[in-house]
Amino acid sequence: MRRNAQAMTRLRFQTFEDPSHRAGAARIARLREVLREQGLDGFVVPRADEHQSEYVAAQSERLAWLTGFTGSAGTAVVLTDAAALFVDGRYTLQAPAQVDPGVITPVQIAETSVESWIAATLTSGAVLAYDPWLHTPDGVARLERAAAKAGATLRAVTANLIDAVWTDRPEAPAGAVTAHPAELAGESSEAKLARIRAALTKVSCAALVISDPHNLAWTFNLRGADVAHTPLALGYALVPVAGRAALYLTSDAVSPALRTALEPLAELGTRSDFPAALDALCTGGTRIRLDVGTAALALKVRIEAAGGIAETGPDPITAMKAVKNPAEIAGARAAHHRDGIAVTRFLAWLAGQGDTLTEIAAVEALEDFRAETGRLRDVSFPTISGSGANGAIVHYRVTRETDRRVAAGELFLVDSGAQYEDGTTDITRTVAIGSPSEEMRDRFTRVLKGHIGIARAVFPVGTTGGQIDAVARTALWQAGLDFDHGTGHGVGAFLSVHEGPQRIAKVGPVALEAGMILSNEPGYYRMGAYGIRIENLILVEPRTIPGGDRTMLGFETLTLAPFDRSLILPTLLDATETAWIDAYHAGVCEALSPHLDSETRRWLEAATQPLRQGA
Amino acid sequence: MRRNAQAMTRLRFQTFEDPSHRAGAARIARLREVLREQGLDGFVVPRADEHQSEYVAAQSERLAWLTGFTGSAGTAVVLTDAAALFVDGRYTLQAPAQVDPGVITPVQIAETSVESWIAATLTSGAVLAYDPWLHTPDGVARLERAAAKAGATLRAVTANLIDAVWTDRPEAPAGAVTAHPAELAGESSEAKLARIRAALTKVSCAALVISDPHNLAWTFNLRGADVAHTPLALGYALVPVAGRAALYLTSDAVSPALRTALEPLAELGTRSDFPAALDALCTGGTRIRLDVGTAALALKVRIEAAGGIAETGPDPITAMKAVKNPAEIAGARAAHHRDGIAVTRFLAWLAGQGDTLTEIAAVEALEDFRAETGRLRDVSFPTISGSGANGAIVHYRVTRETDRRVAAGELFLVDSGAQYEDGTTDITRTVAIGSPSEEMRDRFTRVLKGHIGIARAVFPVGTTGGQIDAVARTALWQAGLDFDHGTGHGVGAFLSVHEGPQRIAKVGPVALEAGMILSNEPGYYRMGAYGIRIENLILVEPRTIPGGDRTMLGFETLTLAPFDRSLILPTLLDATETAWIDAYHAGVCEALSPHLDSETRRWLEAATQPLRQGA
Repeated sequence: MRRNAQAMTRLRFQTFEDPSHRAGAARIARLREVLREQGLDGFVVPRADEHQSEYVAAQSERLAWLTGFTGSAGTAVVLTDAAALFVDGRYTLQAPAQVDPGVITPVQIAETSVESWIAATLTSGAVLAYDPWLHTPDGVARLERAAAKAGATLRAVTANLIDAVWTDRPEAPAGAVTAHPAELAGESSEAKLARIRAALTKVSCAALVISDPHNLAWTFNLRGADVAHTPLALGYALVPVAGRAALYLTSDAVSPALRTALEPLAELGTRSDFPAALDALCTGGTRIRLDVGTAALALKVRIEAAGGIAETGPDPITAMKAVKNPAEIAGARAAHHRDGIAVTRFLAWLAGQGDTLTEIAAVEALEDFRAETGRLRDVSFPTISGSGANGAIVHYRVTRETDRRVAAGELFLVDSGAQYEDGTTDITRTVAIGSPSEEMRDRFTRVLKGHIGIARAVFPVGTTGGQIDAVARTALWQAGLDFDHGTGHGVGAFLSVHEGPQRIAKVGPVALEAGMILSNEPGYYRMGAYGIRIENLILVEPRTIPGGDRTMLGFETLTLAPFDRSLILPTLLDATETAWIDAYHAGVCEALSPHLDSETRRWLEAATQPLRQGA
Repeated sequence: MRRNAQAMTRLRFQTFEDPSHRAGAARIARLREVLREQGLDGFVVPRADEHQSEYVAAQSERLAWLTGFTGSAGTAVVLTDAAALFVDGRYTLQAPAQVDPGVITPVQIAETSVESWIAATLTSGAVLAYDPWLHTPDGVARLERAAAKAGATLRAVTANLIDAVWTDRPEAPAGAVTAHPAELAGESSEAKLARIRAALTKVSCAALVISDPHNLAWTFNLRGADVAHTPLALGYALVPVAGRAALYLTSDAVSPALRTALEPLAELGTRSDFPAALDALCTGGTRIRLDVGTAALALKVRIEAAGGIAETGPDPITAMKAVKNPAEIAGARAAHHRDGIAVTRFLAWLAGQGDTLTEIAAVEALEDFRAETGRLRDVSFPTISGSGANGAIVHYRVTRETDRRVAAGELFLVDSGAQYEDGTTDITRTVAIGSPSEEMRDRFTRVLKGHIGIARAVFPVGTTGGQIDAVARTALWQAGLDFDHGTGHGVGAFLSVHEGPQRIAKVGPVALEAGMILSNEPGYYRMGAYGIRIENLILVEPRTIPGGDRTMLGFETLTLAPFDRSLILPTLLDATETAWIDAYHAGVCEALSPHLDSETRRWLEAATQPLRQGA
């Protein structure tokens, strides 16, 4: 399979340079000068922006600038004589490789939490500073308790201390903000605001601060370009139960069409108008809901100073946004059909590469096939393209330094996704290069049994993701195996590829509802050897079961792309599992074949033969 | 099968009289006089004693005395012009039947919680009273928030208001308190105290108040007789990290052997010595752990008044007690073997009764068979003996009024348990009277598939009961069915038949550990028609799986008694499920046959034939 030569010339959304630097010692020294000047004993530097987002703008990458660590989660605490970087299990290898161990100590939070380190390390009477825009009230309360244990205190700064020393800090993002078409959104912003106001009334709040840019995008049917991989416009909104809503965006590149659409619904101000507007809303003791997950402590402080009552709790929009309406579901189906064509072309191309293939070449090819749909807005996250032992690193991101050529007998894991205007995708396929070992086939088939178990699950209304997570693990458990990540996360509609509140995981307390979209991605990882993950997106749908007496739910699988049949051990599957795979493959072939060139179509037809005949 | 005629003459541990009364109106009127005298606007009457126990002494049955309601959980709130009784789903039918609806309104907590009723009903400025010995700090905090919403306040009383009007209130219990033999306890009280002190040091507490009588019994290797069905001695203990422990029992009928055994370990005081001893412990700001689940607010208030720091959290004993040691496990196996003989004799007897059988006759026969072991100390809870539609009432307790004769074509559900000195049992069998319908066989077999799924489960260390609960439901879910109770509860070692913290349920956040004993009891209930439940006790045990890379756990089934094969549809079972039943039945027959009379042995041999041959 040959790719379009023109598309191959440039990659739009991903790079492979190692983004880390070795300037940590000098930068931390400059930060310590600021600490001395201000009479402070330490500063907390979280990997966070004002909205606790997964992807942040370049100007908010303070942790990476300071330490060199570029992971998506972590916190540094810099004291005058010690500095530590706290990371989770995903970054066990990356953190020590990226930071200067002479000035900053990487710490696993599973072993020592930020709080226990603070409690043990701060001296009595010390003052630890933090930026109240980068922490939630709950987060600050945890830090305060830790500092108190050491006899130390916490102090909010009015300007972030990093910004004082980061002289070439990037400007605030100013991406284009456009209207999300009504036929894709499926519900008017007016109707959404009415639902939000009803929800606020129910919890006795008179207004909501929208601090989560995803919820801003959903509510006002807008999309932006302020951060990578998620079409967000950064900013805040105020939604009073009585009175006009108001929107304060960081970017002023708002399209005329969106301005017109917003006109009847909300004031459109700039980010700098926001604080005064919030103050004005507070008069007379207004009770204002702040989102527990994304609202900064600074908002709570501001509301209380202006005479309002800040009530921290879930932003009601989060639960509304999680349940997709018919237009969003239709969009998701169309996006997955389109993405399935691109991924199938990629898989067919991959099958023809032999052992000349490299991890970066695979990322480039896959992005090119998606770009050739003519509809690709971005990848929904940086592609995980891991061959051999790299496949066992769950959040692996290939760089020029780590790139490697695949070898026969290895597995190749590709986890990727796309942002199209009608939907967000996320898919993982694991393929064998040459002949896989019997152990690889056994493990792959057990992961597949878990994947099928979730895909076929039927459960009553009220069931949580936590209740069904074990279904994805049973076949692995029977062999004394497991995997150390959740089975599924929520996915947005041309929004974040990681969306809450629902998840399928060991801890997943939210009930699954018809219309929610989740991933179904069990895996198995043998460190230093290979990684396996099988991921489709699934839609929660009502199920009517004749003779039953409960209201039931099940899943429709949205993703369309074949599994590698050479990795399946048919003897490990029961009849219903075999039937599920054969039906899935037949459906993939039927849906995609008419849209493929003849070479890819022949490959897909062979790849989707029934197991009994092809095995 | 004939029972010993002598044993049939009396029933030791269960009665069938309807314990409710119709004096509620007069008693509530007298309580309201007290409210007026004391200038109060209401009083909260929980079904609770000073230890938040499941079974309480007669003198603590204030809710039943006041309202006539005899359920094991519930709360009345009596105001000057309104009174409500709040009960959970188990008592939907029982509460309205037992109380006088003219003076007290039964309320389902699922519809209206105590707190929301208080918030909506109390008038501004009202004073609602409560007894601080009958509520935990968390419970009082909830009531306080509710009262505050109504502009009312909560006030603790120094003497319970019911006791002022309950003129013939029973005396405090004074059951015999004896030593639990070392060979059954398996760990000395000295060793247990050392473990408790280490756990206290770990959470920076200098002392523990033991407020849970189960934990008192476990720690000091004693057993009592103060409440029904659980061998508890009511009282408190103080365990300082440094210094001598002290024990304050309600009963003074302490055996000389126990006195001698306690001598080197702990002071033995009376219940009335306890408050001053607690005060003395508090001097100098001692940090004292109070159990979050069972310690009364009055304890916290007392500690703080005496200058101590009350730290509410889990009593560390609860987690220790849940993990049985080898002696306790050996005791459990012996108790289940003994109980299996009694239950099998009962099942054989039942099979010969035809349609002359009544629910009460079954309870009497089963208790007699258990008494004939010569080792029965008590039943571990009142037997649930439900035929036909009564079987669908999950917590049914037969009385002379509800007793009924079984009819051909009905199901008969018997859920019962025994207290032996070496172990506590709990078993449910559902049997067909005559020929069951195909629907009954389908439902029974799906419940059985869930039971087998749990019995065969293998899972990694760290897995919680909540993660595997769905295994018990999958076969029902596939048919659009479910059941509305947990799958399993912890069970004590000659202690409570309902013991925490572990459980297998929709919400079950505690990790299962080797040595824990739980029930495995899925069910299915068709209201107005029949009930099905299949219950064995299971022991968590380590599992080594060749080729695996995780430390795994599984279950050993402890209970020994046959299932009714006429209710099993072999076509619904897969090969591993059929093999499990055949192996279980073979094991039951092998273990019990040598100890049965020839008639029962012949019945058991037929009842435990392999499914393929016998179906």
